[in-house]
Parts: sequence; C-alpha cells; structure tokens
Amino acid sequence: MRRFKLLFLDRESPVPLQVQLTAQIKELIRAGQLAAGDRLPSTRDLAADLSVSRNTVVYTYDRLVSEGYLHSRQRSSIFVAETAPELQRAAREREGARQALHVPDSIPIAAGSAAPTPFRPCQPDVQLFPLAMWNRLRSRALRTTHRNLLHYNSAATLGLRELRENLAAYLRESRGVRCEWWQVAITSGSQQALFLLGQLLLNRGDRVYMENPGYQGAVRAWRAAGAEISYLPIDAEGVVVPGKDDQAARLLYVTPSRQFPTGVSLSLSRRLALVNGAADTGTWIVEDDYDSEFRYEAAPLPSLQSLDAGGRIIYIGTFSKLLFPALRLGYAVLPVPLVEEFQQLKSVADDHGPMIDQATLAAFLDTGAFYSHIRRCRRAYAERQRTFLEAIQKGGLPLNFRFSDGGMNLTGFLPKDYDDMEASARLRRAGLDVPALTSYAASHIDPQAAQEGTTLRTEPGLIFGFTAFTTERIRAGIETLLRTGLR
Amino acid sequence: MRRFKLLFLDRESPVPLQVQLTAQIKELIRAGQLAAGDRLPSTRDLAADLSVSRNTVVYTYDRLVSEGYLHSRQRSSIFVAETAPELQRAAREREGARQALHVPDSIPIAAGSAAPTPFRPCQPDVQLFPLAMWNRLRSRALRTTHRNLLHYNSAATLGLRELRENLAAYLRESRGVRCEWWQVAITSGSQQALFLLGQLLLNRGDRVYMENPGYQGAVRAWRAAGAEISYLPIDAEGVVVPGKDDQAARLLYVTPSRQFPTGVSLSLSRRLALVNGAADTGTWIVEDDYDSEFRYEAAPLPSLQSLDAGGRIIYIGTFSKLLFPALRLGYAVLPVPLVEEFQQLKSVADDHGPMIDQATLAAFLDTGAFYSHIRRCRRAYAERQRTFLEAIQKGGLPLNFRFSDGGMNLTGFLPKDYDDMEASARLRRAGLDVPALTSYAASHIDPQAAQEGTTLRTEPGLIFGFTAFTTERIRAGIETLLRTGLR
Repeated sequence: MRRFKLLFLDRESPVPLQVQLTAQIKELIRAGQLAAGDRLPSTRDLAADLSVSRNTVVYTYDRLVSEGYLHSRQRSSIFVAETAPELQRAAREREGARQALHVPDSIPIAAGSAAPTPFRPCQPDVQLFPLAMWNRLRSRALRTTHRNLLHYNSAATLGLRELRENLAAYLRESRGVRCEWWQVAITSGSQQALFLLGQLLLNRGDRVYMENPGYQGAVRAWRAAGAEISYLPIDAEGVVVPGKDDQAARLLYVTPSRQFPTGVSLSLSRRLALVNGAADTGTWIVEDDYDSEFRYEAAPLPSLQSLDAGGRIIYIGTFSKLLFPALRLGYAVLPVPLVEEFQQLKSVADDHGPMIDQATLAAFLDTGAFYSHIRRCRRAYAERQRTFLEAIQKGGLPLNFRFSDGGMNLTGFLPKDYDDMEASARLRRAGLDVPALTSYAASHIDPQAAQEGTTLRTEPGLIFGFTAFTTERIRAGIETLLRTGLR
Repeated sequence: MRRFKLLFLDRESPVPLQVQLTAQIKELIRAGQLAAGDRLPSTRDLAADLSVSRNTVVYTYDRLVSEGYLHSRQRSSIFVAETAPELQRAAREREGARQALHVPDSIPIAAGSAAPTPFRPCQPDVQLFPLAMWNRLRSRALRTTHRNLLHYNSAATLGLRELRENLAAYLRESRGVRCEWWQVAITSGSQQALFLLGQLLLNRGDRVYMENPGYQGAVRAWRAAGAEISYLPIDAEGVVVPGKDDQAARLLYVTPSRQFPTGVSLSLSRRLALVNGAADTGTWIVEDDYDSEFRYEAAPLPSLQSLDAGGRIIYIGTFSKLLFPALRLGYAVLPVPLVEEFQQLKSVADDHGPMIDQATLAAFLDTGAFYSHIRRCRRAYAERQRTFLEAIQKGGLPLNFRFSDGGMNLTGFLPKDYDDMEASARLRRAGLDVPALTSYAASHIDPQAAQEGTTLRTEPGLIFGFTAFTTERIRAGIETLLRTGLR
C-alpha cells in the first residue's frame, strides 16, 4: 500500500477533500503508480490512513467507478479498471487539445451574487428574512408530503394549489383583489408574467401605453411581442390617462399604488377614468402592484383591479421584494377568459415551476409568518426612511422629495436642466449606486422608441433606495453624498 | 378577561392553531364581545391560558395588527383598533357578495403532486434521492455565502457561474460535449430551453424536422414559434436522416442516445450523416440527451455535439430525471454565436432562475454526491429492468422488446393492426398507467400536423417505465397486466 502514502490532502484548501482525492488517484494512474487490475485499499483502511471520514473515500471511489477509472468486484473490492490508463490518456489529450475560448465581452462573468450598495433601489434587506423559520416550514412540507412534492405535477402549471389559495385569500383581504384561487398564476418572477402576457395579448404592431419614466422589464416584454409603444407622462396625480380622442391601445401598463420610479400614487379620479376607459375601448390593463405592502403613513388606496367590473385588469405582483429576490416567485391574477390560454402558454414556456419553494411559501402565508415578516420589514423600513430624509434634508442639496411616503425608494427631483446622468456617474465613482431618473426615461429604457409628439425625456432626478441598508449605512452613505456634492 | 375563555383551539384539526386563533378573535370583534379600544391579554398570559406556545399568540397578534384589526401602543400593549368593527363588517360583506365562481372544466384542480403509478414512463424513483445530503449542501451554501445568495443577481441570467462550470466539466467528461462554462445556459426545465430556442431560431413558416413518434413538448415549442413541421420516420437505426433531395430545414430535433419514446439508439453512420448534412444546409440541430446516464449494458455512444465541428448543434438536457422532476432545472449548451442572444431573450422571458437550488446543485456536482447518486440509481434501475423483462417474458404476451437497454422506459411493440390505444385504455381501467406508442405519433402530439406524403402514424406498441417502482411493485404490476390481458 506504499503508493497510497503519496496521497496528501490539504485541509486548508477550499477544494473539497473528495475532489482532491479523486484528482490524486487519477494522477497515480496517469503516472503509472497504479496499473490496471491493481487493488485499492478498502474504504475503511484508506479513510483511517488519511484521517478522513469514510464517506469521503466512498464518494471518491463511487465517482471513479462511475467515470470508468475503477471497477468494483464482489461486494467491496475495488480495482483499477482495464480502461483506466486509456481513459486518463484520452482525458489529458482532450483537455490539452481544448483551447479554452476567450469569453466574449458581452457575457457577464461575475462569479456570485453580492449585497447591494447604497442606495440601490428596490432591494429588500435579506438579513431581516426569517430564514430559520423558512427552512423549518420547508422541511415540514417535505416531511408531511412523503416526498410527493418531488414528483412531476401536471396539474401545477399555474402553481401549487395551496399556494394559489393562500395567495388569493391574502390578495382579497389586503388589496381588495377580486379573484378565485384558480385565477392566480404563479410565475418565475413578475417578469415571466409580463413576458407571457405580451405573447398572449399582443400581435405585432399592436399599440401599448407605458408610463414615462417607467419600468424597462415591461417595455422589453411588449417589444418582444412586436408591439408599438406610446408613452404617457407622469404628473402630480400619477400617469396622465389617455382621453377619448387619443389612440386606443390594446394594452396599458400602470403602477398605480406607487408609480415606478417616481413614487407618485395615482389619484382616485384617474383610477376611475382608467377603469372606465378600458371598459369602453377594450384595452387590457396590466396593474403592477410591486411594493404596495410598504406604506408608512396613509393606508394604501384599493387596487385598480378592485374597482374593475369589466374584467379588463390583470393584477401582477412579486415576492422578490417582500421575501428575497433570488426566490423568483411572482404572480398574475387573470381575468377568467384568459386563465386557460395563459396556462397553455405557460406549459409550453417552462411547464411548472419548482415545487418545494412553492409549498414552503404556501405554509409561510398560512402560518402567519408572512404577516409577521411584513410587519417587521415595515417597521425597519419606516425608520430607515425617516433616517434618510432627516439626514438628507440637513445637507441643503437641491433635491426635492415630492412624494415622501416611499415604499422602497425615494425620488429626489432636481432643478430643470440639471444633468442627472452626470450626477449619478459622479456618485458611482464615489462608491454610491444612485440611478438617475433619466435612466428610466423612455429615451433610455426603449431604444426603439420613436419621437411621435410626446416627449421621451423626463425631469432630472435621482432615485434612492433605502430599504436594504441599516440606518448606520444610510448615514454613512449620505455623508459620502454630501462630501461628493451635486454641483 | 372572561371573554377570552370563549376561545377554543381544536388540536386535532388540520387548521393551524394560529389560523384558528386569528379567526376566533375576529369573530369576537364581529359579535361585539370585543370593542374598539379594548385591551388584549399579553402574549404570555394568553399563551399560558390556552396552553399554546407564546409564538402562536405573537403570530396571531402580528397578523391582526398588520390587517388593521389590532393596534399596538407602547412596547407590548395590544388594543382592538378603532377601525376593527368596520373592517370586519366590510370583510363579511365582501365575502357575502362574492359569488364563488365555478371552476371551468378546462382548468386542472388536482390538489397536490402524487407518486406515479406503474408503469408511468420517464419517472425517477425520488425515494433514492439523498435528500438529507442535498439539504446539508443547501444549508452550507446559504451559510458560506452569508445570505448573498438571496440577492438579485444580474449576472446570473444564464445561471449561477459555479453551476455552469461544474456542469460544463461534467458534460465534457461524461458526454464528450465541447464547451466552455459560459456556453452553458441553465433553464427552467429543458422545456424552457426548447421554448426559447424556438423563439430565437425560428420565424413563422420555417421548417422543422421532428421524429415520429416523438416528444410533444418539442412540437409545442416549435408550433408556438409558428414553424411548419415535417416528420421523419424511425427504423432500427434510429431516425431516418433527410437526404440531399429532401427539403432543407431551419432546425432538426433529435434524441440520438435513445430515441424518445421507442428507445432505439441512433447508429454512428446516421450520426455522421446528420452532422455533415447540418453543416451543408445550415440547419440547427437540437440534440435532446434526456436520459443517456441510464445505460446498463454497452457504453453510450458519444453525443452528436462531440462529433460536430460546425457549431450547428445545441445540446440540451435536464436534471429532472437524474435528481427529481420538481427541481425544474434543465440546461442548453449553446454554440458561441447564440450565447448572447439567448441570454437577452432569457432575461426578458423570466430574468434569472431561483438561486438557492442552483448553488445546491453546484455543490452536489462538486462534492461527487451527484456521481454516487447516479451510480446508485443505475444499479437499482438495472435490477428493475431485469425484473421487468424476466417477469413479462414469462407471460407470453404479444409484446416485442426490440431495444432492451432501456434507460428509463422499454417499448413493447405490438403486432401490426393491433389497437394500442384501446389496450392502454383497458390497462388504465385496471389501474396501470401504460401509454400507447400511438399517443406519441405525430397524428396525436401535433393537432396541426398535415398529411404531406409521410405518414403521421406509428406501429402499435406500449411504453413501460420501470425506474420509479420497486421490484415488488413491478412484479405486482405485471400480474395485473397478465390478468387483464392484451387481447
């Protein structure tokens, strides 16, 4: 067994021990230290010899057997396979011949996810998320279903039934949404809902109304379906609703609870005008209610969908901002005539989504842990908003926070003719992530936008997210902001 | 506090205690037993009184506060909110006025996932999956990344980098796939890969070649892109490759390792003809290698992609069959010129996928647990295949298992003119899930298929999956089959 003395495991290395061991045994074969037919030590002996757990050796042998380097005879004897030297040679040659291609510049190669930098908008504080509770509910869901959750589920194209039921009850109660559970479709983020709605409702050349400034994810969904987009301006009452003399559209996208990104709430008279107008023109309205849970002063106005008797409103939302973004669970509440077609399209697009997370979320809603979490976030975010506004108002910056019940972001409007893009770039060099309002203008989010009469620009401003950062980081961020200055 | 004596929790009920408690406190408000401004007992007192954990009461109060029924003053005092009676009345009225709509027949309403019945094809045995190990790797990934995994990850549209790297190494080693990690795109099941490829590569009216019998998920993806489909017959060497005189196609879909569903492996000469033909005609080939890991006799032929020098092959696969279906992780290996466009389309379609599962899978591959699992499945499935073939061959049924190195399924061909659909229906009534080969014929999987010359039918046969069932269930299933009979 002397040759196994050549094995050395580096316990400080980030490379797992099995991986080190696998590579070293292959190396012994390549170097001729191990020949075809040689018997390997038992897993127990080698584990004792290397002072590693027996599982480490079992994994290593298993892997080498399944790759064809080792061969197992009888119950427990492991030998070097006849084909091993050949395999090893071929693998070396392949890797040698393989010219690692240069990564094209257009492909992002960042290694992992990173925490957002102040004042990145729309980011929840993932440290507030009750991960231990979530994991317990996940384990319970797996246990009580006896692994049936792991199976293919042909009935779950639009989501796990329990989740759809609990979500429907929540939306009825908290947002006045009128729906049955089977009208709720679970999607891969709200982005998938937007994309599928574009594919379902729009034909090439159909007209869509968008807000300016507005949400690029929606623009891209409508453009992917070949739509023509007209932009509506935003004023102190929210989006300016098209009148009877304006072109009718097939679809209108709106963020009434809190306009993205300005933060203005759509007035009740405009809401009614939108709903009534849609009934008259047969326009579909996509109501994106992306962060209505976070409101710190007045109670939220009811959702548009709750005012709609005509069934023209598709209500969409996401758990990315309430729980954590990497969960990728969004939803759409569909008018009855769209449910079946949406389901058919979803089943072609990606069949059903991952089931374990859906079952966990269903339990999270059901046990009330969801409500506790929202409340905890609301409390923390309210304090962060207060801290942010107090600190920034002392600085005497030319920022006007017109809509100050902020959700996750606050827009500081700048004086006319101010170059907000330049200001944002300067702050970025100082280590702050503060997007310019102009970067959400139609002229920026929609390269295909045409200049037809209405302007594609917006007032200048800066968007500050405050929810993902502790009050200490907010204060430090504002100090940096003040040091950097805006003019 | 006497009125709280009215609370009664039913510990036998499946309804969680918090939910019961929430409903009962609302009921006390509705009935006037609790009025606006009344103070509630402390969480500690009420918990002691009801003999429940204090958390149960904390959740209940939190939820009622966030719904506006209760109001918290100072640190710990909870009162009935002024708005509570009004809210309760409004909620009752809403629910009363809400006519629960009838669920349309076209919408599946099955409650949960269920284990497959013998002999459902293409189902892994989820009981073999090392769930405890998976959960440990999941916890480790969350711990070592300090929750950064929970953030939005703009660089992960095509998947977490570690997963793409480990998967690329696995595909290079095990299947000879030539690729760099950044050519690997992680998708929501292989279905999303098919759908996005259809959207990316096909224009309305483009021609696609499919196998007959074949895979309906692919047909639906090409039809969604507006393609015209021509069907190629299958013989003993696999799919009959179009010749120089046949119409050129924009795309050809093929399952060379083991044709779905017949199980025939594509011969080497046909493989070469396919690859060379694609280079001449500029056809894209989608190689769906859905279960090549499960081969019990000969070593698998190398993937088509490994033979291709022209960069015309898109190699796709899935972890649904290796790990568990509800994971919904598939992948595509893209030729270099397609990577960027695919990424752009994926980002519109649903942005990135859920990150925790991807990080867990990356570790599962890295530690070698993946290889052990495949080996364990291969051993179990080989025994199940043997049991199945031995038991069925004793029965003297008119089934001919032409391709008997089965992957996950075995096709029993029936004599010409046999009505396999009727046989399948009869077996279903006896409790067996055995699809007819005809149900995979072009005439069945593609309602839009036209009759142009080539037949849209197939020989009769029955498809038996054997992987999800223990040898006992396989024997019992075959007894039922023999009792029911085939003629």
